[in-house]
Amino acid sequence: MASTNTLPYIGTLLQGPRNAITDVEGVSVGHQTLDDGAVQTGVTVIRPHAGDPFRDKVPAAAVVLNGFGKSVGLVQLAELGVLETPIALTNTFSVGTVATAQIRHCIAANPESGRSLPTVNPLVFECNDGFLNDIQQLAITEADYLQALDAAGPDFAQGSVGAGRGMSSFQLKGGIGSASRRVSSPCGEVHTVGALVLANYGRQPQLVLAGHAVGERLATQQATAECKEPEKGSIIIVVATDAPLDARQLRRLALRAGAGLARTGSVFGHGSGDIVLAFSTAYTVPDRVDRPMPTIAMVHDGLLDGLFQAAADSTEQAILHALWRATAVTGRDGNHRAALSEVLPPSSLFSSAEVHALP
Amino acid sequence: MASTNTLPYIGTLLQGPRNAITDVEGVSVGHQTLDDGAVQTGVTVIRPHAGDPFRDKVPAAAVVLNGFGKSVGLVQLAELGVLETPIALTNTFSVGTVATAQIRHCIAANPESGRSLPTVNPLVFECNDGFLNDIQQLAITEADYLQALDAAGPDFAQGSVGAGRGMSSFQLKGGIGSASRRVSSPCGEVHTVGALVLANYGRQPQLVLAGHAVGERLATQQATAECKEPEKGSIIIVVATDAPLDARQLRRLALRAGAGLARTGSVFGHGSGDIVLAFSTAYTVPDRVDRPMPTIAMVHDGLLDGLFQAAADSTEQAILHALWRATAVTGRDGNHRAALSEVLPPSSLFSSAEVHALP
Amino acid sequence: MASTNTLPYIGTLLQGPRNAITDVEGVSVGHQTLDDGAVQTGVTVIRPHAGDPFRDKVPAAAVVLNGFGKSVGLVQLAELGVLETPIALTNTFSVGTVATAQIRHCIAANPESGRSLPTVNPLVFECNDGFLNDIQQLAITEADYLQALDAAGPDFAQGSVGAGRGMSSFQLKGGIGSASRRVSSPCGEVHTVGALVLANYGRQPQLVLAGHAVGERLATQQATAECKEPEKGSIIIVVATDAPLDARQLRRLALRAGAGLARTGSVFGHGSGDIVLAFSTAYTVPDRVDRPMPTIAMVHDGLLDGLFQAAADSTEQAILHALWRATAVTGRDGNHRAALSEVLPPSSLFSSAEVHALP
Amino acid sequence: MASTNTLPYIGTLLQGPRNAITDVEGVSVGHQTLDDGAVQTGVTVIRPHAGDPFRDKVPAAAVVLNGFGKSVGLVQLAELGVLETPIALTNTFSVGTVATAQIRHCIAANPESGRSLPTVNPLVFECNDGFLNDIQQLAITEADYLQALDAAGPDFAQGSVGAGRGMSSFQLKGGIGSASRRVSSPCGEVHTVGALVLANYGRQPQLVLAGHAVGERLATQQATAECKEPEKGSIIIVVATDAPLDARQLRRLALRAGAGLARTGSVFGHGSGDIVLAFSTAYTVPDRVDRPMPTIAMVHDGLLDGLFQAAADSTEQAILHALWRATAVTGRDGNHRAALSEVLPPSSLFSSAEVHALP
Repeated sequence: MASTNTLPYIGTLLQGPRNAITDVEGVSVGHQTLDDGAVQTGVTVIRPHAGDPFRDKVPAAAVVLNGFGKSVGLVQLAELGVLETPIALTNTFSVGTVATAQIRHCIAANPESGRSLPTVNPLVFECNDGFLNDIQQLAITEADYLQALDAAGPDFAQGSVGAGRGMSSFQLKGGIGSASRRVSSPCGEVHTVGALVLANYGRQPQLVLAGHAVGERLATQQATAECKEPEKGSIIIVVATDAPLDARQLRRLALRAGAGLARTGSVFGHGSGDIVLAFSTAYTVPDRVDRPMPTIAMVHDGLLDGLFQAAADSTEQAILHALWRATAVTGRDGNHRAALSEVLPPSSLFSSAEVHALP
Repeated sequence: MASTNTLPYIGTLLQGPRNAITDVEGVSVGHQTLDDGAVQTGVTVIRPHAGDPFRDKVPAAAVVLNGFGKSVGLVQLAELGVLETPIALTNTFSVGTVATAQIRHCIAANPESGRSLPTVNPLVFECNDGFLNDIQQLAITEADYLQALDAAGPDFAQGSVGAGRGMSSFQLKGGIGSASRRVSSPCGEVHTVGALVLANYGRQPQLVLAGHAVGERLATQQATAECKEPEKGSIIIVVATDAPLDARQLRRLALRAGAGLARTGSVFGHGSGDIVLAFSTAYTVPDRVDRPMPTIAMVHDGLLDGLFQAAADSTEQAILHALWRATAVTGRDGNHRAALSEVLPPSSLFSSAEVHALP
Repeated sequence: MASTNTLPYIGTLLQGPRNAITDVEGVSVGHQTLDDGAVQTGVTVIRPHAGDPFRDKVPAAAVVLNGFGKSVGLVQLAELGVLETPIALTNTFSVGTVATAQIRHCIAANPESGRSLPTVNPLVFECNDGFLNDIQQLAITEADYLQALDAAGPDFAQGSVGAGRGMSSFQLKGGIGSASRRVSSPCGEVHTVGALVLANYGRQPQLVLAGHAVGERLATQQATAECKEPEKGSIIIVVATDAPLDARQLRRLALRAGAGLARTGSVFGHGSGDIVLAFSTAYTVPDRVDRPMPTIAMVHDGLLDGLFQAAADSTEQAILHALWRATAVTGRDGNHRAALSEVLPPSSLFSSAEVHALP
Repeated sequence: MASTNTLPYIGTLLQGPRNAITDVEGVSVGHQTLDDGAVQTGVTVIRPHAGDPFRDKVPAAAVVLNGFGKSVGLVQLAELGVLETPIALTNTFSVGTVATAQIRHCIAANPESGRSLPTVNPLVFECNDGFLNDIQQLAITEADYLQALDAAGPDFAQGSVGAGRGMSSFQLKGGIGSASRRVSSPCGEVHTVGALVLANYGRQPQLVLAGHAVGERLATQQATAECKEPEKGSIIIVVATDAPLDARQLRRLALRAGAGLARTGSVFGHGSGDIVLAFSTAYTVPDRVDRPMPTIAMVHDGLLDGLFQAAADSTEQAILHALWRATAVTGRDGNHRAALSEVLPPSSLFSSAEVHALP
């Protein structure tokens, strides 16, 4: 029991009202969770706006911190600087199925896709949940993607849900976490940056919680064989902002999520697919050449530092939320991951000076 | 009728015995072709060696000349410098299905994949054959991938077969083409470079055949509405060599295929996914850390020029083969693509000084 | 004597009034040529606009086709997507001196550079003119940069001038060439694309002039030892346009110059530093965060194909101009490069159907 | 006075005998320091081995975390995967002069450089020391580079020396720091990773020392105007290892230095040129094609995690050393930077459990 621990607050920037990626206006998140014995997996979908991103494309960029990963869609995203489907997260072996679901969903809404209109670029990110989930069953169906999509809203669960259901982090239960930060530019504008993570990375001795290197102690205490295993995980980080940034600037923003990740003890392990996607909701890019292009002024690069700080801080906070809100799961072959909140010694870590109440 | 035309020979390097990518020892190619009314599509598989690339990984690198494409697997390939499945080519909307087929095939051969072993990285390239093929049917099944894999051998058909079945190029019939070139280094070693293309790119007025800008004349003659359409195609180029190159050098080699592509009139159009993959068969990288790493000497970078020339020349030649060997296809909604060999005026293009007999 | 040869016209797009990079409004070019015995070298400067690019930064991007080169300034240009000095071209060993000249020139105009203002990012490209020029003398001075800068105007010499003075191409005399093309978009706007090259690349047997593989014949005829040497040259290509493109799009445009280069026979040889810089004059980015950011609409990516064609065609044409307008030079140790116009057999290459008069 | 503070030890890996980059066998470091009123600057040189790297090239790769920087030489290094001069660090406006010094030094040792031999690729990194140093004087001469080169040895000073003389970090005195870590692979081999930093980055409120967010308190205490300024600094990180890694793997290693940097509070600020260079001393690549290429087995990628941890930990430790060993400097216009050791309240930060004695 960890009832006397409270969760540290990362940094000095203020959070948004939900302290979640959905504090960025228009962004919604939905889950489909499969919890059935050896099947502990799911799909999480992030919709960048309420419309069809195939028609109103969303400026975006990705950074691959470590490319031991099987994400789908980054080639076209890098070339064109936009995403054109909702962002899907799932387990590694289900990327093909979810990509196909995105294709069919786009065709249904755009019957000329692949004919007079271009083909659609699916965008699917993944981590390997094979410790808890019988990943070889390929249990995710196209319907699961659609369920997650339909479930998308501004309020969403965190922890052992959706794509996070079977994920592990630091040999503890990982999963979905989210957070947000607000930034006032010297020019007076206020922008929101939100992060959502699918945390499935980290060896326990490395774990750092808000500057506290708790991992070594936990690892000694737990002393499981897996603590010595090489990293075979991954983390997917999605960063949203309402600041008007172009794809080049969003790539810069995405990289800063890596700073937040590093603060938790990660060194972007060899076997970990550590990928960051950043997008802006400030404008969209039309699908057709006869629709008008945006004429919005981008943020001056000289004013990006606040957004950079927000990307790093909200990422670190989102990881803490993923660990903290995850509940223990037992899955395939009786494999079990405890929740951080169970194993953390009460009252031992965080002084009252640096805490805030858990929502 | 084109019986009096013969196919030009590109460059001054000698071809290998098959003038195909399978002149690189150990490489084999197989097709599965779907030819059924509105379904005109297929799968082509290139096996880099006879073994399991998940265990004996193949040094590889890719270059994205234009990233309007949905290929799967390039993130991990860029990070680790190896491929670990056969290379699959298919239509755009089938990449998910074929990736899933590769995953299941890897699990069957490696029952611990995704558990104690890492997950496998599917490698699927695509072009949009939606003009001739009813791509929205998603007709390709996982079994089609397995059929193409089983069919792989040193001799293989070119033209309107496999993944090339429904492809168009320069508003003519495109498809699969291949060629090879041999290079003697100043140090006396002879290496082979082979290329295989899936040609689905190009607007007709741009077409250049071995230096002859025939496209303008053909376009005037054909004067179809599509000639004015923007490019919505793609070309996938796979370059194999038996020269010992590391991933950095293979990336350099891959880029030179772009020179061969450019000579055919391509300017890497906006809507074209133009991607080159290069791999070496000279050594493999073991899956497990307790197996010995290769100790082979790489080619000195100062000796790469011959290989660069071979990559460009075999690519240009492979494109010519794709166009020349393609047969006319009628598909979805009666859409039709003529073969180059049908539309090219007899005897008009190539002087005897620059021709060689068609195989 | 080549008086009966006329220069082929590349492609079907119309040229601008000067058929030079300065057809892009506001762009000017100046040379400083050193012609003194063993010293055969110089500096060429391209000004993107008449103002100070340190204050009004110019959107820009670069593509490295082959990175055997020592250009200065590309790290910051890639990060920020702008250039902030005139573009300088010179010989390889003079990049340090010219970078220092750019720094001092910026300090003179902006006395707070490096103090309350950021430091300036010099932008210097180079080729190795060591065959004709005694490059080890490091003969270029900071004053030479300033002279070239002062000389900049809309009309400028081509051939064996400025940075092109000592350059070789295809074992012939290389140097400075330029060309332009105009593009009408389907939406009715007309844009200009201009290219300027510093041509110092290519082995003679590779030379292709407007589709004519003349190199083999010339090489046989000349049969010099150098024809068998590996490439140790380089080509720098600068592409300007008045189309409003952001840095991501300019990177796409720059790559297409590589298609034009490939058509001349280049396979981007190992020892050649083949680098393309593209910039737009349609807007500028302010130095200070309190100045307004541009609100101009970029060209839709779906309308880029015409600009891509123009970049490829103007590059190929600029290379032809460099070769054609170069005059023979004798330099260090009596080393000599003949002009293409001298060695090309009269009337033999170009039919009247494909020529246009030399300006 | 901070005599009762001791310096924290980062991580659990053991340090090498010097706890410096020169624990990697063969690596040597030299400084030339200019300390004369308004001139507070210098040059630091890292020699990767005792020979001439133009003849025996050193496998290397770089990662640009943030490219607001003017480093010279990274284009060719990325293409060829080797460095071929000693690594020079200096102030921003002196990169041209130091590059020229490297060129002349190479010509002196290799009289055919730029003629029958290729030109040399200078490799110069920089930070802006303009707060303490009158950078506009361009005080560094070519002789200063040679002095630093001659001074190179296994033992070298840290802090306010060499290129670090005028650098600032977190509005405190920055400069040169170094550290090393040793890694035992599961296969029994022991490798050393060493880092050297030129620290000139960071806003004071961000400063984190070994997990302790001391910056906010220090900033309140100091309350200088500069604390609110945007970042205009930079950090150069050089990572050396004796593990046999190829350029692709060295790029992976270099990125992990960014994790160490992030732990100190950096979010890779917009105005900061944050660049990492990594090289291996395990083998060299010959200049001439007729010399034998290395046949050494590289480390399996699956064994890189220890080296990744060492790169991150030694970088963080090196930054602490730079701050801790820096002495206060007063320079241009009386500008002053205090030393961290002066401003840190005694005994307040580090518990005895986590300290080790200062060398």
